[in-house]
Amino acid sequence: MFDILQYSPIFKGHTPIEIKTLFTNEIYQVIDFKKGDLIISRDEECNKLIILIKGNVKGEMLSYSGKVIKIEDIQAPRPLAIAFLFGRNNKFPVDIIAIDDVKIIVLPKNTVVKFIQKSEVFLINYLNSVSNRTQFLTRKLYFLSFKTIKEKLANYILELSNKEKTTVELLKSHQELAELFGVARPSLSRGLAELEKEGIIKVNRKKIRIIDQQKLSQLLN
Amino acid sequence: MFDILQYSPIFKGHTPIEIKTLFTNEIYQVIDFKKGDLIISRDEECNKLIILIKGNVKGEMLSYSGKVIKIEDIQAPRPLAIAFLFGRNNKFPVDIIAIDDVKIIVLPKNTVVKFIQKSEVFLINYLNSVSNRTQFLTRKLYFLSFKTIKEKLANYILELSNKEKTTVELLKSHQELAELFGVARPSLSRGLAELEKEGIIKVNRKKIRIIDQQKLSQLLN
Repeated sequence: MFDILQYSPIFKGHTPIEIKTLFTNEIYQVIDFKKGDLIISRDEECNKLIILIKGNVKGEMLSYSGKVIKIEDIQAPRPLAIAFLFGRNNKFPVDIIAIDDVKIIVLPKNTVVKFIQKSEVFLINYLNSVSNRTQFLTRKLYFLSFKTIKEKLANYILELSNKEKTTVELLKSHQELAELFGVARPSLSRGLAELEKEGIIKVNRKKIRIIDQQKLSQLLN
Repeated sequence: MFDILQYSPIFKGHTPIEIKTLFTNEIYQVIDFKKGDLIISRDEECNKLIILIKGNVKGEMLSYSGKVIKIEDIQAPRPLAIAFLFGRNNKFPVDIIAIDDVKIIVLPKNTVVKFIQKSEVFLINYLNSVSNRTQFLTRKLYFLSFKTIKEKLANYILELSNKEKTTVELLKSHQELAELFGVARPSLSRGLAELEKEGIIKVNRKKIRIIDQQKLSQLLN
């Protein structure tokens, strides 16, 4: 268990022995779930930190009209809903469902506070993780303000090029970019292909060469 | 200066004397700006925490097509871009411009880390502030998935009522709700008025009585 935790964003920088020392004398639980199990209900009180140590889960919301909205998939060894343990609104934002057989560690809030006090590395990891989440959401909201996928892509590529470079490297996989843009992955690939067909860019895996900077900028008008 | 900081979300719970003690021997700067001044450029490195101690600022983005997108107004004594000091992407997300005469304190990241180590109250405040930001953005993204203002309102009211209560109290001002929904404030008021005219709800300031629960739910179909 302590072996896998060293790869978790909030424990990285610790050796398995240091992690074991952190856990000594602290309260925590390890729980198993089967594929399809509901691990957490939306609106359940978030007074504990849950870290996946085996398997995959998905976060979903059920709208009042009964539609299931899938939010995201999360893999071990990542923590769940890390930004909901502190702050005003301590409720899980989504239902969390096991995609396969899953093992989790549950740390009561008080244990997390003790880890923060005991380890500066853990503290900085925690601050980084919550901040990364905010940064991701801020960018996602920004990209939502562009209507079409081609607009989103044009903006992303122009940002990377800083309006100077003619070749940029996508810093994310197509899957990650699709998540950032809030679109399906095939739609993203189609958008790139269309820009290429129109002679605006040339795609070579993660490398993008800007062929027609003017047309690319005009997509945003 | 220490008097006003006690009302800032990241210093609350400290007396002015305790705040003064925190600052003793630490590096910080106090800077004045005039109305209209650019305080921070978007993409400038975020290696410092800026706290407004006098006046108001606005956060803006300039799109590649030259359009100014206003993001939000921030009042003293709030910190700016608190989620961008830690995490991977340490760049200010927006241009920050003085709306009137403004005074700021600039704390280098290292000073913030020292405050976190010296004061558990500051640490918890900081975690709460970043988490609140994430929670706000998560809800904002959620509400963006509903197309019309009436859909957003129906969802918000049904959430508050938990599908049981017939009278709910809006927990936010119209201005705050408009920000959460990403719409203009007059549009929000119009949406409420329309729902009232259609006999679905009855509005009495922040109190909303649900007259026709079924129609309210149907708005989401």
